[in-house]
Amino acid sequence: MTDKVRLASVGLGRWARVLARGAQRGDVIELASCFSRDADRRRAFQEEFGIPRGAATYEELLADPEIEGLIVTTPNDTHRPLILQALEAGKAVYTDKPIAHTLEDAVAIAEGVRESGRAFAVGHSARRLAGARMMKRWIEDGSLGDVSLAEANFSNERGLELTPNTWRYFADKSPGGTMIQLGVHHADNLQYLLGTVRTVSAHARKLYTKAEVPDAVMAILEFESGPLGYIGCGWASPGIYTLNLQGTKANLRYDLDFTHWDESQHADKHSQLYSQAYGESERPRVDLPKTDMFREQLEEYALAIRGEAEVEVGAVEAIRALAVVHASLASSERNGEAVALAELIEAAGADTVVGQGR
Amino acid sequence: MTDKVRLASVGLGRWARVLARGAQRGDVIELASCFSRDADRRRAFQEEFGIPRGAATYEELLADPEIEGLIVTTPNDTHRPLILQALEAGKAVYTDKPIAHTLEDAVAIAEGVRESGRAFAVGHSARRLAGARMMKRWIEDGSLGDVSLAEANFSNERGLELTPNTWRYFADKSPGGTMIQLGVHHADNLQYLLGTVRTVSAHARKLYTKAEVPDAVMAILEFESGPLGYIGCGWASPGIYTLNLQGTKANLRYDLDFTHWDESQHADKHSQLYSQAYGESERPRVDLPKTDMFREQLEEYALAIRGEAEVEVGAVEAIRALAVVHASLASSERNGEAVALAELIEAAGADTVVGQGR
Repeated sequence: MTDKVRLASVGLGRWARVLARGAQRGDVIELASCFSRDADRRRAFQEEFGIPRGAATYEELLADPEIEGLIVTTPNDTHRPLILQALEAGKAVYTDKPIAHTLEDAVAIAEGVRESGRAFAVGHSARRLAGARMMKRWIEDGSLGDVSLAEANFSNERGLELTPNTWRYFADKSPGGTMIQLGVHHADNLQYLLGTVRTVSAHARKLYTKAEVPDAVMAILEFESGPLGYIGCGWASPGIYTLNLQGTKANLRYDLDFTHWDESQHADKHSQLYSQAYGESERPRVDLPKTDMFREQLEEYALAIRGEAEVEVGAVEAIRALAVVHASLASSERNGEAVALAELIEAAGADTVVGQGR
Repeated sequence: MTDKVRLASVGLGRWARVLARGAQRGDVIELASCFSRDADRRRAFQEEFGIPRGAATYEELLADPEIEGLIVTTPNDTHRPLILQALEAGKAVYTDKPIAHTLEDAVAIAEGVRESGRAFAVGHSARRLAGARMMKRWIEDGSLGDVSLAEANFSNERGLELTPNTWRYFADKSPGGTMIQLGVHHADNLQYLLGTVRTVSAHARKLYTKAEVPDAVMAILEFESGPLGYIGCGWASPGIYTLNLQGTKANLRYDLDFTHWDESQHADKHSQLYSQAYGESERPRVDLPKTDMFREQLEEYALAIRGEAEVEVGAVEAIRALAVVHASLASSERNGEAVALAELIEAAGADTVVGQGR
């Protein structure tokens, strides 16, 4: 590609580097600028990724006519103002998941996207893992039969290590703890695979973390299409990433060694998908093609800026995933009683946004 | 053992044969008689297991002074009258799980046991699988650290094959479907590992079975000790038997190829227990000793009749497991709202029984 899409990184922490490496594995994207308030961090990021310039202020970055879009990895509760300002300045925006920390902020972002007409993508990358793609194929071609149960777990030890030095420690910045940081991935995966969630029954507990947020959440999802889904997520144990589907014709079990999550070009080497057919106890391994979720989602976003691709996960899908998180917290406060996603989405004013499709 | 404990099989179907084979793998038990209303079935059973006599009526069996105890594998809804009659006749009773189909029947049985003073055992054999025993050891010796999440699944395709010719088809005989037949095993396993359940939030669905009962159930368990537990059980997919614990120091993942469940002397050859330590992504396999759950539970019961052993799973433990089943169904009717086990146990009049310990 001779005329690369020129993007700028905003929020230059660990995840900005993971995504910058993903972008630079292809030849679609040029990282043309970056911004952090911290000048040392900015210079280090420029040097690490060979980025020609860095903006001293966010306004300076947004005024740069060369920059077509942003890659935002700032704390969840800063998404709304940063993204709206960027859209108003005519920039496209990719933001890491969740779209925002509250549904109200997510709706404001969705409305900003609609008004601006700019490309907008949310980093629900996990649905791009080869295992998830293969599951989708087995559902669509009928190989699984009718799915009755879908179980997912995403856990790690982060909650045991949180200190007040990180925003994830605080309930007002990261409500739901492990559920909004980890569980939200499966909230998207499961809706990608099985369609829209109708209700969520959940219990959230703060057991062993010193942070203000839950480190143990279990949620039962009722899908519009009939099946039941489950998301377990913990922040007080070694890492787990699993996704299992039970169908009338076969089961599929996916297991990713999540310690390799950051290097998505290698994720498939550290993951397994097993199938089990009706009447069989053998579980042959299903071959998975090589994928690279971070590179792929960023290139899709970059091409969408030029009108050459469509964004798979935009505001609507991201709001549906976030709504599962907040429905889990609301249900837990109601002693597990099922909370309808429509109730929360309507309360946040998102029904018109979500009702319109992407 | 020169003077074997003389037992009689009652209800001579598939499961009676599984247990008879288990009993005959050791030299503690002598199968001395058997009973089924069907004379052909009785003679075939006598022949298959070399049993000297068969009773033409249940009364004839109970009047046989040689018989010290029964092995009951009749339909769940027949447990109460058959067991109470046997206890009144001075016989000890082993019954397959669940103890009964309703908590009211279970309480009546528990009271009959208490009044009779006879040995009584319920076949919650799954806690004797080597993987469950090893998990218990890791919890007790501190190797797991503090457990936050425990997830279990027991599923098979039975619901797709049920016809009105079997009692499991009917809601009044097998309330809860897959939950009372399969999930009840994990209701016992999880309480064995983590202590008493306080509340259950659940959803039960009848999706693809023609039977009257649910073929998809998901339940979230809140333990008195703090952690959250999950039981998933389906009756409309290939077989699954898993049990996973997440602790602050390690995770344990247990997986049994359930198609070998019937031959418990081989179950360990078809099961794996994997550990994952804090900070590690490797999951070394944990060596499991050879066990034989059916033989072991029957021999324990037989020795308890002679006062030479104590029954591990009696009426109290079995009522607690059954209460999880009924709490799941009650919660599902209340849209997932958590149902306290104490509420159901009290309503069934079992609080005095359960309160007293075994």
